[in-house]
Amino acid sequence: MYGRYTQELGVYAKEEAARLRDGGVRDGAGLRRNTSVRSRTADLLEYQKDPCAKCQSCASRCQKFLISRVGEDWIFLILLGLLMALVSWVMDYAIAFCQEAQKWMYSGLDSNMLLQYIAWVSYPVVLITFSAGFTQILSPQAVGSGIPEMKTILRGVVLKEYLTFKTFVAKVIGLTCALGSGMPLGKEGPFVHVASLCAALLSKFMAAVFGGIYMNELRNTEMLSAACAVGVGCCFAAPIGGVLFSIEVTSTFFAVRDYWRGFFAATFSAFIFRVLAVWNQEEETITALFKTRFRLDFPFDLQELPAFAILGIACGFGGALFVYLNRHIVECMRKQKTINKFLLRKRLVYPALVTLLVSTLTFPPGFGQFMAGQLTQHESLVALFDNRTWCRQGVAEEFDYISHHHGWKHPQVNIFITLILFIIMKFWMSAVATTLPVPCGAFMPVFLIGAAFGRLVGEIMASMFPDGIHADGTVYPIVPGGYAVVGAAALSGAVTHTVSTSVIVFELTGQISHILPVMIAVILANAVAQSLQPSLYDSIIRIKKLPYLPELGMGHHEKYNIRVEDIMVRDLRYITLNSSYRDLQEVLLTSQLKTLALVESRESMILLGSIERLQLQSLLSLQLGRQRRLEYLCQLAQDNGTNDHLSSLTTDSTPSSPCAHTAHANTSTSARQVVRFLVSTQQIESIYFNFFFLLVISQIAEWEEQQLDLPVDFKNCKIDPAPFQLVEQTSLHKTHTIFSLLGLDHAYVTSMGRLVGVVSLKELRKAIEGSVIVTGVKVRPPLASFRDSGNSTSVSEVTELHKLCIRHRGLTLPRELNRRDNDLCQPVVS
Amino acid sequence: MYGRYTQELGVYAKEEAARLRDGGVRDGAGLRRNTSVRSRTADLLEYQKDPCAKCQSCASRCQKFLISRVGEDWIFLILLGLLMALVSWVMDYAIAFCQEAQKWMYSGLDSNMLLQYIAWVSYPVVLITFSAGFTQILSPQAVGSGIPEMKTILRGVVLKEYLTFKTFVAKVIGLTCALGSGMPLGKEGPFVHVASLCAALLSKFMAAVFGGIYMNELRNTEMLSAACAVGVGCCFAAPIGGVLFSIEVTSTFFAVRDYWRGFFAATFSAFIFRVLAVWNQEEETITALFKTRFRLDFPFDLQELPAFAILGIACGFGGALFVYLNRHIVECMRKQKTINKFLLRKRLVYPALVTLLVSTLTFPPGFGQFMAGQLTQHESLVALFDNRTWCRQGVAEEFDYISHHHGWKHPQVNIFITLILFIIMKFWMSAVATTLPVPCGAFMPVFLIGAAFGRLVGEIMASMFPDGIHADGTVYPIVPGGYAVVGAAALSGAVTHTVSTSVIVFELTGQISHILPVMIAVILANAVAQSLQPSLYDSIIRIKKLPYLPELGMGHHEKYNIRVEDIMVRDLRYITLNSSYRDLQEVLLTSQLKTLALVESRESMILLGSIERLQLQSLLSLQLGRQRRLEYLCQLAQDNGTNDHLSSLTTDSTPSSPCAHTAHANTSTSARQVVRFLVSTQQIESIYFNFFFLLVISQIAEWEEQQLDLPVDFKNCKIDPAPFQLVEQTSLHKTHTIFSLLGLDHAYVTSMGRLVGVVSLKELRKAIEGSVIVTGVKVRPPLASFRDSGNSTSVSEVTELHKLCIRHRGLTLPRELNRRDNDLCQPVVS
Repeated sequence: MYGRYTQELGVYAKEEAARLRDGGVRDGAGLRRNTSVRSRTADLLEYQKDPCAKCQSCASRCQKFLISRVGEDWIFLILLGLLMALVSWVMDYAIAFCQEAQKWMYSGLDSNMLLQYIAWVSYPVVLITFSAGFTQILSPQAVGSGIPEMKTILRGVVLKEYLTFKTFVAKVIGLTCALGSGMPLGKEGPFVHVASLCAALLSKFMAAVFGGIYMNELRNTEMLSAACAVGVGCCFAAPIGGVLFSIEVTSTFFAVRDYWRGFFAATFSAFIFRVLAVWNQEEETITALFKTRFRLDFPFDLQELPAFAILGIACGFGGALFVYLNRHIVECMRKQKTINKFLLRKRLVYPALVTLLVSTLTFPPGFGQFMAGQLTQHESLVALFDNRTWCRQGVAEEFDYISHHHGWKHPQVNIFITLILFIIMKFWMSAVATTLPVPCGAFMPVFLIGAAFGRLVGEIMASMFPDGIHADGTVYPIVPGGYAVVGAAALSGAVTHTVSTSVIVFELTGQISHILPVMIAVILANAVAQSLQPSLYDSIIRIKKLPYLPELGMGHHEKYNIRVEDIMVRDLRYITLNSSYRDLQEVLLTSQLKTLALVESRESMILLGSIERLQLQSLLSLQLGRQRRLEYLCQLAQDNGTNDHLSSLTTDSTPSSPCAHTAHANTSTSARQVVRFLVSTQQIESIYFNFFFLLVISQIAEWEEQQLDLPVDFKNCKIDPAPFQLVEQTSLHKTHTIFSLLGLDHAYVTSMGRLVGVVSLKELRKAIEGSVIVTGVKVRPPLASFRDSGNSTSVSEVTELHKLCIRHRGLTLPRELNRRDNDLCQPVVS
Repeated sequence: MYGRYTQELGVYAKEEAARLRDGGVRDGAGLRRNTSVRSRTADLLEYQKDPCAKCQSCASRCQKFLISRVGEDWIFLILLGLLMALVSWVMDYAIAFCQEAQKWMYSGLDSNMLLQYIAWVSYPVVLITFSAGFTQILSPQAVGSGIPEMKTILRGVVLKEYLTFKTFVAKVIGLTCALGSGMPLGKEGPFVHVASLCAALLSKFMAAVFGGIYMNELRNTEMLSAACAVGVGCCFAAPIGGVLFSIEVTSTFFAVRDYWRGFFAATFSAFIFRVLAVWNQEEETITALFKTRFRLDFPFDLQELPAFAILGIACGFGGALFVYLNRHIVECMRKQKTINKFLLRKRLVYPALVTLLVSTLTFPPGFGQFMAGQLTQHESLVALFDNRTWCRQGVAEEFDYISHHHGWKHPQVNIFITLILFIIMKFWMSAVATTLPVPCGAFMPVFLIGAAFGRLVGEIMASMFPDGIHADGTVYPIVPGGYAVVGAAALSGAVTHTVSTSVIVFELTGQISHILPVMIAVILANAVAQSLQPSLYDSIIRIKKLPYLPELGMGHHEKYNIRVEDIMVRDLRYITLNSSYRDLQEVLLTSQLKTLALVESRESMILLGSIERLQLQSLLSLQLGRQRRLEYLCQLAQDNGTNDHLSSLTTDSTPSSPCAHTAHANTSTSARQVVRFLVSTQQIESIYFNFFFLLVISQIAEWEEQQLDLPVDFKNCKIDPAPFQLVEQTSLHKTHTIFSLLGLDHAYVTSMGRLVGVVSLKELRKAIEGSVIVTGVKVRPPLASFRDSGNSTSVSEVTELHKLCIRHRGLTLPRELNRRDNDLCQPVVS
């Protein structure tokens, strides 16, 4: 029932164990024993210690917290926003400092080009290598974007070590170094991870200090999804875009009631982030990060829309290509065994080599002069969003009043060539750079490439229509900066499969005048990219093989047509109420499932609940464990008249407790007992005792067999009394919806209470991926074809109902045939 | 399982019935009979007609559609967008025409003030009265906003007549008249309804023409949620804000995979809507509806933020007051029985009176001169968003270059007084006007009041700081228009409890420079309003008593603490596999539930499924219906040797078919038979036959009793084999989540497969509303207190498990005690 059950159970088990360890629990009239989750470790502990009043006081304390602290969410969100804004601002400051330092070194050595080259190249190589090494040593989980992992975590899967303090430190420092190197990397993906880390750590801190609702697991998920919004929001100072982007990339179903949390935290965070800039005298007041100054009254002509649409479609293909390229690089390196082996041994060689290559190519006096190599991402973007036309004004004229523009100016080369070179080089560089084992995102590089592509299209348009294309008198020249904005939104939207990049560009540029071109281009880019490739984050999820349920594609109509019965596992393992311990053993040995179904009987197959594997293992070991063996031995000894000998042995080692009751947990003691027993039997060395010894062993074996034949006692076992059930006829589409909504791991397929199969995430993933990859051709799984002819499942359903009826009437009717109220009169078993 | 089941069943039943009616279904080896939904009407039809090949061809045709038409969604959305844009544009045109006509009449009669007054007043009275009458006659469902109804429909509830063509016509024409009257009403809420109507009708049309996926109910829901986005999007030319606003006001959980549908359709629709304006020479190019021209480089000072925050908080209180006022007016009129009776009899009097009052007060030469009475909503808004300061430039100076401004200019009265009067008068007028029985929304009037309030605050700020409040040299005067934008977003956000109004204002004004003040004010306004009152739409849902699940409030921590066992109904009605028809009759007579639980037996209480009431009724009438009686009579007659007489009777009326088999569906024939039989028995008039007749009647009564005692045959009954189950320990919070996620109507509470209770929407609503109203005080329901002491439910759970075990071992163990595989060896009943 309700997917997270298993995890809560885990948490509950841990808490219970911890509480038991702390002080033990009073075994109040045997009630608590039956209900609490009994992990084996907890069972092995003693029960007889002082009862603690902790549980009662704890409950009432929680109560108070729950009622009084309605405003706690606000405090938490404000703290989170503040913290993230500070982190973001400090990081930006540090990155700017790093980049300044590189420039200073580079320009200080302008007498000798070799020295200049070494300075230009060594700086990023050192930073990236340090970043890779640092994260590798401290926390390898900090590598990469973090959005795929957050998507998986919000889906309900627990990824170990992804939300620890170590990872936080590794991510922040690693990211600062990686971005400071000037490589084409972004900070937005990692910031989602950093914000989630912040939220998780803050939650832990608050829980430790205040307790109460901060313990609640549901609440923490709500906070994590708010944190993702904060991450994007304070990175771009784009609260609305941040919320929407984080929803699109991390959620499948979004609870609208959590919406305000994200908005509040992201707004607060973005506000503080920009206020810090004002206080630091960087800005006069709060404005956008990449402020544009396009004209308001006539931003674009209606006849330019086809150009925007073409730009969007091209960006769609470009985005798909980027994702393909990125995945292909990783897969290539994995497949090439020699490369793979080498890279695994020398982990820092690959980042160093890639950085060397990239920075060599961008070396300004070298090839870099043709591709604005000396500009940072920020500077390039500001230049690309400029509201004047570059080509019409000539390359030289009026170009240097914004200092960044000189990067684009080249005496010999056309501005078009520069832009094309910039796009092509940055494209593969970004695709390669995002595969580096450092904390890095791909959003910003892609955004930049998109902007450059848009600028290119805009400049071409401007040179084609130097006086604009408006028919009526007034001349409205074409604004290539608008194309740059549209291109940036479209390409980043295509790569991430989101439409909210449009909102992000409005917030980044501070202008919304190009809303329609942006929306049209983003939607077209998405349509193209989604039909060709998964999103970058889904692609990484596949590469990393994270346990995530893929999305149904855009044209997912065929999903209505596949049913659960086509994909479910029919040959499933289960336990019945009558199962013996032998069956249990067999089931545990032959299957690897985490949970097993409990049915009424093999005949009726009525699903009663599900039991976790661990629970069953503990049941089995309770029945056949060392304790029980020893008890049996004691019993045996008593029956055979060797009372004195054995009791002296047992009292020797365990002076206080009687043998058969309150069994002892000290394993070393019991082991010693057996050894002593054996030694003592051999010491006597009489035939009688040798024979007795053999007899004992055979008797133990016999006892074991007997024990295995006993029916399982489920009394001490925690059973999930209402596991999630589906019907055979449920469509794949609905199944996917339910699995994503409730974060399920598996669901039982039942028919009239009878268990007929099980569907897990694995089967579902296979079914979806199978049909997504081969769209339009192989959508029906093999079993689907049987369905149309004959409706066999429905027949069996009816037959089963009949069987049930017959079974029941067979039991009750012979006695009570033709009597009134034949089931109202049945005696109720107390 | 999965809430919508019941509806699909209904749809399926209808389709099945229609198919049977069309040509009959081949009774292929008895298979189809058992599986298809057998409504009584279908059963009464004949089965022996020609088998049709329709079913097979139909299935393969659907198949083709499903596979080939991936692009159908796009076509549908484009059509929807196009249609809605046209509707919106034509309606705007008509409204503008109406308002022009009024102005023309008013200004043409400026010689005589009385005539002028009559013209000014009669015009809206006639229009509103016509609108009220027209909608009343054609479709009363078209009255009001439509958003509350759409919220309920998207929640999974079927509201009859809300999505029909009649309603569409009534809504469009009624809305045009209502808005044309110049009353303070909005078109945004009704437009959501109109777009949904459009989508539903388009779906029906496409289903009729193409069939295939347009039949799918899930898909239609997806399309409806896209339609809501289109409604807002094409009303304000605000695609992004439209999508977000529609999500916030209509959804509880939103599927991110449906996101693109809304974006695509809303963008397309907004695009067409604006393109129409360009083609009609109203605009030069595509720009925002209420374009502002605030300065870009320094939109506001950091020190103005407290003023914005105060504005937001005040708007929050104002929004709550508006919702309270609106609800109070409706409740007042309902409670006053004399008023209520009068209004019910004369339905058109109330709208006429209200319109008369409102238009009298806005009469420009009268009181209207102090509150800009002659301006339409559009004109007022354009004036309020103006980027110049009104008070500093004086009232007279430079004021008339935009013609709308003269409405605000008054020789004797200060601009502040005008604004305050405008706000106060419009406030109550809007609250009253939105209670009129015409199609109308409240968003636009509230938006306007918010803008006026913001302008007021802005003007006060501007007069307090005439040179701005920036510390450094440059003078940046305060922009009151910015305050107007912020106020508009904040007040409309407070009334609707949404944050996406911020996005709507950016799209409406075409400027995003005030993003931070807007976000801060909207969030604060929401925080205040949400803690005081429900949203306007939720308030209307409560007034109209629509079957909707209320939201959990912002501080819903106490919900984690209430469990399902506290709110569930324990005394529930059910049927067992052994139930006799008598039990069935009793259950049907004593309960009014729509579905009944089917359990294995009274003793085990294992839940097998749920059956709809209708199905049970048809079962009962099949068993005891006229057909069966007649059959029995035939049988009886045969047994009593009156073969000739009766068989002559039956062959007389039904010449071809034997009596006892293939029972005939012609009800009039069978009635005739009985009458003839009775007549013939009386014709003979012998004591023997009289006696026989009495005997027959008593025998029929006896037969009936016997029939009632028979166990129910569930073979012909459609059973939902996996109804939704919860555990007793599920928290209210989780229950709410699951109910909203899956759109459930009720859920069974089970424990180890045993049915222990049922929770329906009603109980859940009670529990939530009970604890929402008395926040912080009475959060624990009476039963909750028993829980802490004793853990009684867990005991019973264990006991029940034991019982099950004992029951099973009682059946199997005596035979097989101490034998291996005691349940693996059990014979499987074929």
